[in-house]
Amino acid sequence: MTERLRLTLRVDADKKPALGHGKIRLLEQLAETGSISAAGRAMGMSYRRTWLLVDSLNQLFREPLVVTRPGGGGGAFLTAEGEAVVRCYREIEKEAAQAAETRLAELEKLLTPQIV
Amino acid sequence: MTERLRLTLRVDADKKPALGHGKIRLLEQLAETGSISAAGRAMGMSYRRTWLLVDSLNQLFREPLVVTRPGGGGGAFLTAEGEAVVRCYREIEKEAAQAAETRLAELEKLLTPQIV
Repeated sequence: MTERLRLTLRVDADKKPALGHGKIRLLEQLAETGSISAAGRAMGMSYRRTWLLVDSLNQLFREPLVVTRPGGGGGAFLTAEGEAVVRCYREIEKEAAQAAETRLAELEKLLTPQIV
Repeated sequence: MTERLRLTLRVDADKKPALGHGKIRLLEQLAETGSISAAGRAMGMSYRRTWLLVDSLNQLFREPLVVTRPGGGGGAFLTAEGEAVVRCYREIEKEAAQAAETRLAELEKLLTPQIV
């Protein structure tokens, strides 16, 4: 028996950083934890790398996707645009997987069988 | 005006190396050039890295995707399985892009406008 194949998507625009699985997971973790550092930790990333990714995401879109509350232990949250981007990406993923189901099964048959 | 977004796919199977854009491009270059080193050069990769990728692709599937002709300047070519994998991946890509068209347009509207 071979195992189920999964599709992972990356969205590319010319001359812009790509939007992929990692950035979307980061936005989801941010929504969940309400904190940039907690979201980064959950993904095993340094605070600096997390912050740079959030900044790059905010630059990529017209409106910021992530905002921080002013003040000390303020935390961070997704804007309506941030939520829309996550929703959109996950929908694209679902639609793509459904559309490609037959071909993925075809590809699966060509794979080396799983050694358990 | 924002530019058209493109989808790039990666196919993941549990406990196996992923199959993505780079490996498929390598197979296509191999089919075109008939040579592992020429295919690698076309993609800016060292011979060693190219060879390791070809080997990893051959391990991933039941049948080898790439075979070399015995003898000195023998060259390499895709097997029927190699051609099937490329065709399958490109079909998945096309079907996914068609299915996601509306959502991609939605996401596109949220992007920072292109500065020309």
